Amino acid sequence: MEKKSLIEQIKAGKKAKGVTYTDLAKAIGASEVWTVHALLRQATLSQPDANKIGEMLGLSSEIIEELQTIPTKGHDDSGTPLDPTLYRLQEMMQSFGPAIKLLINEKFGDGAMSGISFHMDVERLESTDGPHVKLTMTGKYLSFNKF
Amino acid sequence: MEKKSLIEQIKAGKKAKGVTYTDLAKAIGASEVWTVHALLRQATLSQPDANKIGEMLGLSSEIIEELQTIPTKGHDDSGTPLDPTLYRLQEMMQSFGPAIKLLINEKFGDGAMSGISFHMDVERLESTDGPHVKLTMTGKYLSFNKF
Amino acid sequence: MEKKSLIEQIKAGKKAKGVTYTDLAKAIGASEVWTVHALLRQATLSQPDANKIGEMLGLSSEIIEELQTIPTKGHDDSGTPLDPTLYRLQEMMQSFGPAIKLLINEKFGDGAMSGISFHMDVERLESTDGPHVKLTMTGKYLSFNKF
Amino acid sequence: MEKKSLIEQIKAGKKAKGVTYTDLAKAIGASEVWTVHALLRQATLSQPDANKIGEMLGLSSEIIEELQTIPTKGHDDSGTPLDPTLYRLQEMMQSFGPAIKLLINEKFGDGAMSGISFHMDVERLESTDGPHVKLTMTGKYLSFNKF
Amino acid sequence: MEKKSLIEQIKAGKKAKGVTYTDLAKAIGASEVWTVHALLRQATLSQPDANKIGEMLGLSSEIIEELQTIPTKGHDDSGTPLDPTLYRLQEMMQSFGPAIKLLINEKFGDGAMSGISFHMDVERLESTDGPHVKLTMTGKYLSFNKF
Amino acid sequence: MEKKSLIEQIKAGKKAKGVTYTDLAKAIGASEVWTVHALLRQATLSQPDANKIGEMLGLSSEIIEELQTIPTKGHDDSGTPLDPTLYRLQEMMQSFGPAIKLLINEKFGDGAMSGISFHMDVERLESTDGPHVKLTMTGKYLSFNKF
Amino acid sequence: MEKKSLIEQIKAGKKAKGVTYTDLAKAIGASEVWTVHALLRQATLSQPDANKIGEMLGLSSEIIEELQTIPTKGHDDSGTPLDPTLYRLQEMMQSFGPAIKLLINEKFGDGAMSGISFHMDVERLESTDGPHVKLTMTGKYLSFNKF
Amino acid sequence: MEKKSLIEQIKAGKKAKGVTYTDLAKAIGASEVWTVHALLRQATLSQPDANKIGEMLGLSSEIIEELQTIPTKGHDDSGTPLDPTLYRLQEMMQSFGPAIKLLINEKFGDGAMSGISFHMDVERLESTDGPHVKLTMTGKYLSFNKF
Amino acid sequence: MEKKSLIEQIKAGKKAKGVTYTDLAKAIGASEVWTVHALLRQATLSQPDANKIGEMLGLSSEIIEELQTIPTKGHDDSGTPLDPTLYRLQEMMQSFGPAIKLLINEKFGDGAMSGISFHMDVERLESTDGPHVKLTMTGKYLSFNKF
Amino acid sequence: MEKKSLIEQIKAGKKAKGVTYTDLAKAIGASEVWTVHALLRQATLSQPDANKIGEMLGLSSEIIEELQTIPTKGHDDSGTPLDPTLYRLQEMMQSFGPAIKLLINEKFGDGAMSGISFHMDVERLESTDGPHVKLTMTGKYLSFNKF
Repeated sequence: MEKKSLIEQIKAGKKAKGVTYTDLAKAIGASEVWTVHALLRQATLSQPDANKIGEMLGLSSEIIEELQTIPTKGHDDSGTPLDPTLYRLQEMMQSFGPAIKLLINEKFGDGAMSGISFHMDVERLESTDGPHVKLTMTGKYLSFNKF
Repeated sequence: MEKKSLIEQIKAGKKAKGVTYTDLAKAIGASEVWTVHALLRQATLSQPDANKIGEMLGLSSEIIEELQTIPTKGHDDSGTPLDPTLYRLQEMMQSFGPAIKLLINEKFGDGAMSGISFHMDVERLESTDGPHVKLTMTGKYLSFNKF
Repeated sequence: MEKKSLIEQIKAGKKAKGVTYTDLAKAIGASEVWTVHALLRQATLSQPDANKIGEMLGLSSEIIEELQTIPTKGHDDSGTPLDPTLYRLQEMMQSFGPAIKLLINEKFGDGAMSGISFHMDVERLESTDGPHVKLTMTGKYLSFNKF
Repeated sequence: MEKKSLIEQIKAGKKAKGVTYTDLAKAIGASEVWTVHALLRQATLSQPDANKIGEMLGLSSEIIEELQTIPTKGHDDSGTPLDPTLYRLQEMMQSFGPAIKLLINEKFGDGAMSGISFHMDVERLESTDGPHVKLTMTGKYLSFNKF
Repeated sequence: MEKKSLIEQIKAGKKAKGVTYTDLAKAIGASEVWTVHALLRQATLSQPDANKIGEMLGLSSEIIEELQTIPTKGHDDSGTPLDPTLYRLQEMMQSFGPAIKLLINEKFGDGAMSGISFHMDVERLESTDGPHVKLTMTGKYLSFNKF
Repeated sequence: MEKKSLIEQIKAGKKAKGVTYTDLAKAIGASEVWTVHALLRQATLSQPDANKIGEMLGLSSEIIEELQTIPTKGHDDSGTPLDPTLYRLQEMMQSFGPAIKLLINEKFGDGAMSGISFHMDVERLESTDGPHVKLTMTGKYLSFNKF
Repeated sequence: MEKKSLIEQIKAGKKAKGVTYTDLAKAIGASEVWTVHALLRQATLSQPDANKIGEMLGLSSEIIEELQTIPTKGHDDSGTPLDPTLYRLQEMMQSFGPAIKLLINEKFGDGAMSGISFHMDVERLESTDGPHVKLTMTGKYLSFNKF
Repeated sequence: MEKKSLIEQIKAGKKAKGVTYTDLAKAIGASEVWTVHALLRQATLSQPDANKIGEMLGLSSEIIEELQTIPTKGHDDSGTPLDPTLYRLQEMMQSFGPAIKLLINEKFGDGAMSGISFHMDVERLESTDGPHVKLTMTGKYLSFNKF
Repeated sequence: MEKKSLIEQIKAGKKAKGVTYTDLAKAIGASEVWTVHALLRQATLSQPDANKIGEMLGLSSEIIEELQTIPTKGHDDSGTPLDPTLYRLQEMMQSFGPAIKLLINEKFGDGAMSGISFHMDVERLESTDGPHVKLTMTGKYLSFNKF
Repeated sequence: MEKKSLIEQIKAGKKAKGVTYTDLAKAIGASEVWTVHALLRQATLSQPDANKIGEMLGLSSEIIEELQTIPTKGHDDSGTPLDPTLYRLQEMMQSFGPAIKLLINEKFGDGAMSGISFHMDVERLESTDGPHVKLTMTGKYLSFNKF
């Protein structure tokens, strides 16, 4: 089964059942970001989680099983993203990455923020200046050690 | 004056004077990320901020003036970064970007998180599992409107 | 449904019904550029606008619904365009971009013209020297502020 | 003489003499965009225009002569621009280009907007919603004819 | 209808009817190059020309109509061509382009040869040294003017 | 000696002596295109031709000798050219190449136009519609033979 | 007919009939390399040769005709080859190319080895050190002449 | 010491002493191709060979020592070569590579021709059809074995 | 048969039969890495090995035969891998490659580790610090010799 | 100080003092790979290690200090390496990466081998079949967990 068609069936299920990503995340006790990430086939669901989501969205047993297999990660439309929403996210890291690195170096030493042992949240903030998007990312500090 | 040589002189000044990025950020009343970003010539300092930093680091008047001119942004070594610390930052957005977009769409509608009207913090968290890096990014929500 | 096939059905509808993009733009009270942009699945139509366009072009309810979902933006044939008409548009920005930036810097300060809060028009001008194409783009000025 | 060093000397001259691009454009009776474009060595100045600009900025005779020679056009940092201001300009054409093409086709036929016989203006508009940047581009329509 | 399949049907028609490109060009009163160019969907045929070609090649009415619509130009296998015949054509311009530019500059001033208002011929010359290919291209001179 | 600096000295010599490329081409009995091509270090001059050109332009003996050595061909700024004059030349071949190939195939068989045993001319034509650039390229037909 | 499927049918025919490339080459009086090259649709077979091969492999008349049409050359998986056998062949030329060029320059003058008027053989050599592959390529010397 | 400047001094030495690559190859008992390859810093000379070449070309002791150190291989101007002589060499392998692979597979099995345990010769052949370049490459067959 | 669909059927067979890669490797007396490598169509199975695997996984005779043919190697999703697991493997070689080369040079001379005559193992190590992955690669040393 | 010049001085120091990488690694109690890696400015030395190495190689105090600062990692000549020794190392991971991933998945679950918490050794093995290079890499297993 193609990733693309699997994702389309999940979106169709969400629409037919009137279920949001927030509902799905709550149901499996995970963050919203990770839940959507897994439904885009970038992570692997446990059997109970896959079953719960399958039930809520009315998915076929084939899809439910597929969601439990380990995917080859990465999105089909990777590279410099043409979608302006995706581009601005990547631009932030390209632009601020070197500043973040210098601060990690100053605060921790020669190391990196793990891209694997890490979690992320997306929130909506209201303000007089209109709504804002808040991203929070927390990752384990990994030190480059002598060996 | 080459960006590269300007940045080297700032680093030399920091070392000679024993000043941290945190000290500099406090002195000009800005976040640490923005302060380092500006010292990497990705943003423009006001005259009082440039003077204060120049004084703290013992910079020449030429550099102090340069820091007040609007730079062409972007880092010399942009592209897929080879430095593992930089790569992991970019990988997060490449990997989680589509999930973030779907959550913005669900929570806000068809729009994006501004890459310009935005701010970012880097913090060090301690835990029993070792230190963690925490990145917080907050950006104005920009809606794609009919026109 | 593939973007490509959706767009082909819209073109077929336009031809069958003898409707121009100008007609469609007037009917939904939007600019011509935005209307075509949305029909190329680069923007999201409201329900009443999608219904009106669906009616005028004789589109299926599936397409009408699709036009109201938020797309992943960007064109399939993006990159350096091989079509000479598209190429010249992009060449203008590549060629004149740095001059525009310097004028924005001189007239506004360190900032950018928003690519999201913005609108655009295409007009035909007649002159003794033959017809001319006039593009007008107006975008909110976004300032890079200290944070 | 390197383009880069020539441009730096022009910027230094502007600063030393307190002259704006607007002043320079008025002095030679050209648009602001074209004037900056030419000073970035993307167009060729006539002898009287080069002399006038040389005088206003206190340039050496070597630079004044150089400004009259035909340059190899294109900017050193071309490609996908990393500067957010430049990127947003290019993104507009990448994003709206296909819509513009369809409107040119509908209003004119099979042809293109000239990237050579063309002119452009940048204006600052004030509004209650903050300042806006207005770009106007007018180019000759070139038809793809049978031959 | 895919470009590729349309082109294959034209080739099949040519073979079935024993018609050459030269015959088709003569029938519509156009150059051979432009005729082939249009049949590869890089240009738009008028209704009478499309009808004539459709008749000569026994094409379906669907194809005949398609040939009258404005295509997105550019070939599927663009980029550095791997076909040695195509490569050598492109190599000539890559290799001799700067020399041509300098001669245009010397003979005309700061300008370009139009890639749109232009025509081209391919001829076979016989000589004692074997056959030669002769390409002739004539294009309007477009001047980069002050604006 | 760097190609770039050699070419600059040739341009300086041309200006100082008031000599055109046409003059140089006549003096060595070669076409204008080839002469400029060779002075851009894309071909090798014979000793008498290098001497004649050296004399006409007042070149040093070091340059005169250099012009007789076989260069590594190719221009420093090769790739998709950003200069609009160079781009349009390359666009012609990219756009019309497949049509030329089909005509070569129809008129000659399976073969190519040599990019080595070939010559080229650039002429200025006057017409009521303004000046035109005429390029003529003649190359040996090379057949792909069974071996 | 897709190249890929044509090639698969040729391979299937070879297997079914127990015929080697060496057998096919002998049958049409050509070298083995050229024969395989042509069966990969990089060259054009004459009618008698196509018939003979069609007969030996039990090919359909459609394939036999296709083998006589002039292909667009180049392999689908061109670029830096990931197959280690293909990579090592290309690495040799990338690595030794400049040395070959200097020897051609020393032995012949400013010219090239033709990539069209050329032939190639692949042989198996036995030695005490195990089998060796021997490639022999002979191509016409083409001189870059003044024109 | 830069590779580029080392190579220039070797060329200067050859010219000053009137020595050919053939002479140098004979003196050190190596093939011409390998000798030039080593002088382009793609291989390492033994001490006696470096001394002999240094003596014949009048090289400094610094260069003679440098020629005995192991270089990082690869040419500065690698990639798709713009020099027509280099391009044609690479085109042969790109074009004929898959045919060679199939013949290696048929004659040897699943393996490759070594790009390291290999040697190459360049010869000049005279014929009534003009001079020809003959390349001979012999490499160890390396089998992909089960492990 | 497409590689992709062949691989999917192997995975389906593994799941249906409850067989691990370790089981398959033991059955054919090969390492686990090579066995998976071959099942991904990067190596060629002998007839008995293909039969044994076909039997264990319940594969069709068509697949069993396909596994014995020599594939074009390389993975469809080659290039900079987006999958974090794959990326980290490649990053190690990109990052440590130059250090490995210098150690090979110091310990062996001017040569390389064969990428063909080589074998590799993947093991799981347990430790108090959690599980570790151990990769062992052993390859023949190939010397760059004078020829 | 440029990385390149720093590395050259280290190599010069090694040669002058007759010290091997093995000697340096032993002196600082680190593996050989990591030691060379750090001397290529891909890792940071502690003060005592930098002093010890500086003493053994006779380095200036400026270099000794530089070796203790955190570098931007990545090699200048990264990308597809043209050096055959480097290429073969990268080819192994490109070729075997997917097999390694499947084995990690089978033996550990959905996770990766850390590219940071990891170590590597290079050894020389002697055998009747000639010397072999043995690479051993051990890295922490990082699990992709639900968050």
